[in-house]
Amino acid sequence: MRPMKWENRRLKLVNQLLLPEQEQWIEYSDYNDVATAIKTMVVRGAPAIGATAAFGLALAALKYRNSAIDEFQSNFDNAADILAKTRPTAVNLFWAIERMKRVVNENREQCTVPELVEKLVREAENIAEEDIIINKSIGKHGGNLIPDNAQIYTHCNAGALATVDYGTALGVIRNAHEQGKNIHVYAGETRPFLQGSRLTTFELMKDNIPVTLVTDNMAGFLMKQGKVDCVIVGADRVAGNGDVANKIGTYSLSVLAKEHNIPFYVAAPISTIDLNIDHGDDIEIEERGVDEVIKIFDAYIAPKDAVAYHPAFDVTPNSNITAIITEKGIIKNPSLEAMKSFFNKI
Amino acid sequence: MRPMKWENRRLKLVNQLLLPEQEQWIEYSDYNDVATAIKTMVVRGAPAIGATAAFGLALAALKYRNSAIDEFQSNFDNAADILAKTRPTAVNLFWAIERMKRVVNENREQCTVPELVEKLVREAENIAEEDIIINKSIGKHGGNLIPDNAQIYTHCNAGALATVDYGTALGVIRNAHEQGKNIHVYAGETRPFLQGSRLTTFELMKDNIPVTLVTDNMAGFLMKQGKVDCVIVGADRVAGNGDVANKIGTYSLSVLAKEHNIPFYVAAPISTIDLNIDHGDDIEIEERGVDEVIKIFDAYIAPKDAVAYHPAFDVTPNSNITAIITEKGIIKNPSLEAMKSFFNKI
Repeated sequence: MRPMKWENRRLKLVNQLLLPEQEQWIEYSDYNDVATAIKTMVVRGAPAIGATAAFGLALAALKYRNSAIDEFQSNFDNAADILAKTRPTAVNLFWAIERMKRVVNENREQCTVPELVEKLVREAENIAEEDIIINKSIGKHGGNLIPDNAQIYTHCNAGALATVDYGTALGVIRNAHEQGKNIHVYAGETRPFLQGSRLTTFELMKDNIPVTLVTDNMAGFLMKQGKVDCVIVGADRVAGNGDVANKIGTYSLSVLAKEHNIPFYVAAPISTIDLNIDHGDDIEIEERGVDEVIKIFDAYIAPKDAVAYHPAFDVTPNSNITAIITEKGIIKNPSLEAMKSFFNKI
Repeated sequence: MRPMKWENRRLKLVNQLLLPEQEQWIEYSDYNDVATAIKTMVVRGAPAIGATAAFGLALAALKYRNSAIDEFQSNFDNAADILAKTRPTAVNLFWAIERMKRVVNENREQCTVPELVEKLVREAENIAEEDIIINKSIGKHGGNLIPDNAQIYTHCNAGALATVDYGTALGVIRNAHEQGKNIHVYAGETRPFLQGSRLTTFELMKDNIPVTLVTDNMAGFLMKQGKVDCVIVGADRVAGNGDVANKIGTYSLSVLAKEHNIPFYVAAPISTIDLNIDHGDDIEIEERGVDEVIKIFDAYIAPKDAVAYHPAFDVTPNSNITAIITEKGIIKNPSLEAMKSFFNKI
C-alpha cells in the first residue's frame, strides 16, 4: 500500500495515525500542513518523509508561481526551512530538501519562475518514482540473503508505508517472498507508536506474507528458542562509519541478535547514508512527547502525571551489523573503511 | 498499596485490571471466583497469587465446615485442584496450596472439621503475614546492594501489588529509599499487560520514589547511555540451578545488562525456588491469549485477524544473573552448586 499520491498537483497522504482501523486519505495543498503531517506522523518512515517534503516544496513552488524570482526564492527557502524543522533524525528529509533547492539554484538564472515551478514539480515526482525503483533494487540485493524457510524478525515499519512503495526492510522480505521462498515474519509491535502492530502486520497480511505479531520484549525469547534466522530493519540515518540510527529498540535487537549469532541486516537507500557524519553518536536523536508513552490512543496506561522518557530513535554500532543493504549493493561488516571502499566503487 | 484484604472471613482483591485509572475492590466468598480472579489477572505476581490461593482454600474450608471429614477433604482437594489449574508458571501458587493441604493431612485425625477449618483460615492468614515479613527481609538484604545515586531499571511489577505488601524487587528499592539513598527508577512498561506503566509507576509515585516510565524497547539505549546502574526484577519460579522464569522480557533485559556490564539482580522469596526442577528449561511457560497482544483495553492495535504469539514468561539463565536476593540472604553467581551450598547453610 502506497502512503502517498500526487494527483492534480495536490498531495494525498493516508493518515498513518488511524491505520489499520481506518483508511483515511488527507489532501494537502499547503506546505505548512504538510510540515504538520510530518511532525505529527500522519506520514513517517525516512524515505516517505523525504518524498513528502519534496512534494511539500512542490506545493510551495506552485503557491508562489506568480512571484518574481527573488520573492519566489525567499518564500521557497522559507518553506524549506519549515519542512526541515519537522523532524531531526531521518536524513532523507534534508537530502530531499537539498535536492529541491538545487533545482532552484541551478535554474534560477536561465528559467522563468513558471518554468522553475514545473522543474520543481517534476523533481518531486522523480524523487518519488526513483524511490520505488531504489526499493525494488534493495529488495533484489537483500532477497538473496534470505534463506528458504527463514524466520525473519523485523522492527517498526520499513515497508511500503515508510517509503513511496515496496519498502526497504519489507522490500527485502517482499523480494524473498516473490522468489517463492517460504518465509515467516515476526513483527515487533514497536512501542510507543506501534508501527509494527498497526502497519507492518497490516501490510504483510495484505500481501499474504505470513506474519506473527509479538511485543518488543519477546524478541530475546524468540531468538533463544531458535525461532529467528535473521533480523532486518530499516534506517533513519546511517553515519559514515556504518553506525545506524533507527527506531528506538533497534539497538536492543542488535545486541540480542549478536548474543544469539543471528545475522542483523539494515536495508536503506544511499540517500539515508550521511557522509557528513563520521560516527553514530553525532546523529541527533529526536525526543518526542511523553504522551505517546503514557497514553495509547486516548486511553491513559499510566498515572496521568507520570514522568516518562521518549527517545524516538537509538543508534546501533556498526559492529552489531552484519550488512547494510542498499540499492547499489551490500556493505558487509560496515566500518569507516568498508563504507569508503563501497562509495569508491559505486 | 496492598492488593488484598482478609476481612470478616471474606477476601477482597483490588482489581489490577483497572489500576491506576480506578481502584475497585472486589469481595470474594467463593473459591471458584478466586480461581477466575487469578486466571484473569485481577490479582497477579507470584507471592500475591500464592496468598490468594491460600485464602481461596480458606473460603473452600469455610464453605464445607459442616461436612463430615471425608466429604470435607474431597471438596477441599477439588478446590485445591481448581486453584492449581489457574496459572502454570509461578510456583508460589503450588507451594501455598501444598502448605494448606498439609494442614488438612496433619490434623484430620485429631481435629473436628470446624477445628480444621479454623486451622486452615489461620494458615492462610499466616502465609499472608509471613509474606510481608519475608519481603521486608528481602528488601534489607537487597537494599545494601544498591549504591547511593543509583539508577535502577525494573521490569513488570514485583511490588506491593505483586505480593501481600512491600514487594520483592520493589521491596529492595523501597529499602534503599528508606535508607535515605538517592535513587531513581526506570520502569519498563511491560507489554502486553503493562504492569510497569499501570502498576509499578503508580506504586512508586505513591511512595514518592522518583520513577521514569519507558517502553520496553528503550532499555538497551538507556544502558548504552550509562543511565542504568543495576537491573532488579522479581521471579515467578527459580529452578534448582538458579535459572529464573519471570515476566516476558526479563531474558532480553538480562542479555542487555550483561552486554553493558550492569549487575542483574533477582529478588524472590525462598518459596519461589523450585528445588524439584534442576533447569529453567523444564519450567512450564504459560501462553496467554493473543487478544492481550492485539488489543489494548478494548482498542485494537493491529488487524483484528492478526496472528500473534503471547508467551507470558521467559527463562533467564543463571549465567546472566549477578545475584538472587532472598529473605535468608543473597546467592551470588547462582549455579546448581551455589544454590545447594546456600540451602545447606540456611
